[in-house]
Amino acid sequence: MNFSISKRVLYNALTTVVRAISPAAPVPSLSGVKIDVLTDRVILTGSDSNISIMTEIKESKADDPVQNELMILEEGSVVIDAKWIIEIVRKMSADIITFETIDGTLTLIKGGSIEFKINGMRAIDYPRIDFTIDTPSFKMNTKMLSDIVKQTAFACSDKETRPALTGVNFKAKDNTLLCNATDSYRLATKKFNVEYPDTFNITIPAKTLSEIHNTVADELEFNMAISDTKLFVSTGNTIIRTRLIEDQYPDTTRLIPPSFTQELKIDAKELLNAVDRASFIKSDGKSVVKMTINQETMDISTSNQEVGSSHETLSVISFTGNPITISCSGNYLIDAIRAISTKEVTLSFSGELRPIIITSDEDKSLVQLVSPVRTYN
Amino acid sequence: MNFSISKRVLYNALTTVVRAISPAAPVPSLSGVKIDVLTDRVILTGSDSNISIMTEIKESKADDPVQNELMILEEGSVVIDAKWIIEIVRKMSADIITFETIDGTLTLIKGGSIEFKINGMRAIDYPRIDFTIDTPSFKMNTKMLSDIVKQTAFACSDKETRPALTGVNFKAKDNTLLCNATDSYRLATKKFNVEYPDTFNITIPAKTLSEIHNTVADELEFNMAISDTKLFVSTGNTIIRTRLIEDQYPDTTRLIPPSFTQELKIDAKELLNAVDRASFIKSDGKSVVKMTINQETMDISTSNQEVGSSHETLSVISFTGNPITISCSGNYLIDAIRAISTKEVTLSFSGELRPIIITSDEDKSLVQLVSPVRTYN
Repeated sequence: MNFSISKRVLYNALTTVVRAISPAAPVPSLSGVKIDVLTDRVILTGSDSNISIMTEIKESKADDPVQNELMILEEGSVVIDAKWIIEIVRKMSADIITFETIDGTLTLIKGGSIEFKINGMRAIDYPRIDFTIDTPSFKMNTKMLSDIVKQTAFACSDKETRPALTGVNFKAKDNTLLCNATDSYRLATKKFNVEYPDTFNITIPAKTLSEIHNTVADELEFNMAISDTKLFVSTGNTIIRTRLIEDQYPDTTRLIPPSFTQELKIDAKELLNAVDRASFIKSDGKSVVKMTINQETMDISTSNQEVGSSHETLSVISFTGNPITISCSGNYLIDAIRAISTKEVTLSFSGELRPIIITSDEDKSLVQLVSPVRTYN
Repeated sequence: MNFSISKRVLYNALTTVVRAISPAAPVPSLSGVKIDVLTDRVILTGSDSNISIMTEIKESKADDPVQNELMILEEGSVVIDAKWIIEIVRKMSADIITFETIDGTLTLIKGGSIEFKINGMRAIDYPRIDFTIDTPSFKMNTKMLSDIVKQTAFACSDKETRPALTGVNFKAKDNTLLCNATDSYRLATKKFNVEYPDTFNITIPAKTLSEIHNTVADELEFNMAISDTKLFVSTGNTIIRTRLIEDQYPDTTRLIPPSFTQELKIDAKELLNAVDRASFIKSDGKSVVKMTINQETMDISTSNQEVGSSHETLSVISFTGNPITISCSGNYLIDAIRAISTKEVTLSFSGELRPIIITSDEDKSLVQLVSPVRTYN
């Protein structure tokens, strides 16, 4: 193996593939970046076995020396510890870096008057990861993914007891894509109009979703392909392959009440600040805010024997129905209002023990649900 | 107790005194801020028993309503958990906040339509801390303290086995102030010309020094007074009282060799970057860089059986004496060069097993010493 490459191009490619590498690699070779040098390209791969990312750098045309970002002298493969290679390449001052295996897996990395001889690992010990995409793919725009990550993923569960709830469910049918996230106490649901030819129903681990988002962030759109229990995301020269959650996703449609008895419209920022202030009073690490709402005002209060109590009164924009008193998790309410991020929010109720539905007239695509909490004072 | 106060004034005062409060308070009351309301002023106190900070806010003149930042209605004292009071005051939207004890230590904190009732602690249970300064004080400018913190404090030991080494030693004599910090493997020594009437020799805990620095950062100068085993720092309305380290500070003057056999001048940034690059190769978490220097070049190399090796050649500005090969801790060398922060640095040697002295022609006030490390390859 022997090639020279632009530091900038290599560093960008490395930062992409190392996203997949876990500090607790399941096998030693997965702590490294695999470098495959072919006749006309270099392929870098990083993986933690659940998510794998490969990116390829093609050799430039010989008649275009200005763009000469990669020159291959000899093919070959090696695996180099991800921490080491990232640190070496980042700290190199030269614009061009050469890589050469000099004795088995011992790799000479050289730039200007600086040289490192680094003990690599054998490429043959690296798990074989198939990046072949053999199913039709569809396009997704990055803004859509960005909305899903910001507006739904936070509602996923972080407990492994119900694996399905650790991911965001994507359900496509009849030109509609519905994304759901729930930890069983709250639900975030986002709807898009799409033109996908196929129907599908997949659950992508929340952690993976944000790695995908980081990787495609600079592109306007990217390709997705679903193959059995795997998802392939591709953009430019990069392919992400990730496992999907196989457990069946619960039916969330029946969670949202069909009709409401009360509807409150209120300034989102005022409500957010008030709930945030009140939420510092916690019991067992959890804040429970009590809301008492009538035609004119919304009272927000919290209390805890040890700390004390808080009380605040907000003006409402409008309220229909009978006055209601209802309690819920302050942090869940904050997350839901933040995700909506509009000037006004609507809170719809159908009883003290029925879910609170948070929506906005300004963005009908998003519905947030927060379960009430029973209180005894 | 009953007073109203400007949110801004109170918040600034709180952020000052909470610096002294430890998350692991030695007694429960020290997890709180003590509020003492006198006839014409409010005094806030925070302490972890080693370092204590008090700041006072005086009632404004009645005939100047614009500056009406504090209005006292009733005297009294209470202690309120530091985390709670900081969070409440920070999140209040009102400009004026009122405090009133309503039932024993239960304190009503109110601003606009927001009110908190917080369980306080009894002021009588708060340790008595004497802030009376009964010894003459001298002025110190903040830039001097800032230099001491940045250029010497990092060299202190973080191990409690030799308590004296966890602090910076200040020795004033004959119009010279000498500040020393050492962990016994390195030494940082900074000298100032001063006009102090007294001689003194005190050791200030490194952690305390940086808290003092944070507290006085906005002032041009501040007062220091030494009383027995305590140091008092005062500025404006704030007094910091801190214990000094009582253990005798070692004599460091004999550590710096009286003469040198080799002297190297080199670009500081080039050396820093090269040592930083090489230092990623560590053995047992420590990097040892080997330097081989002659009239033209400085070779920097590191090696470790598991990782591999690095090698880099720098040009020197000048070198006098016989070629030398010497090894030392890469991180200590980096800290020393960074502390000097001049364009060129001078490394002076007096043998492979004698300390390396790092200085700069541009700033004669600072001397850094790094012990060599014996290597076997």
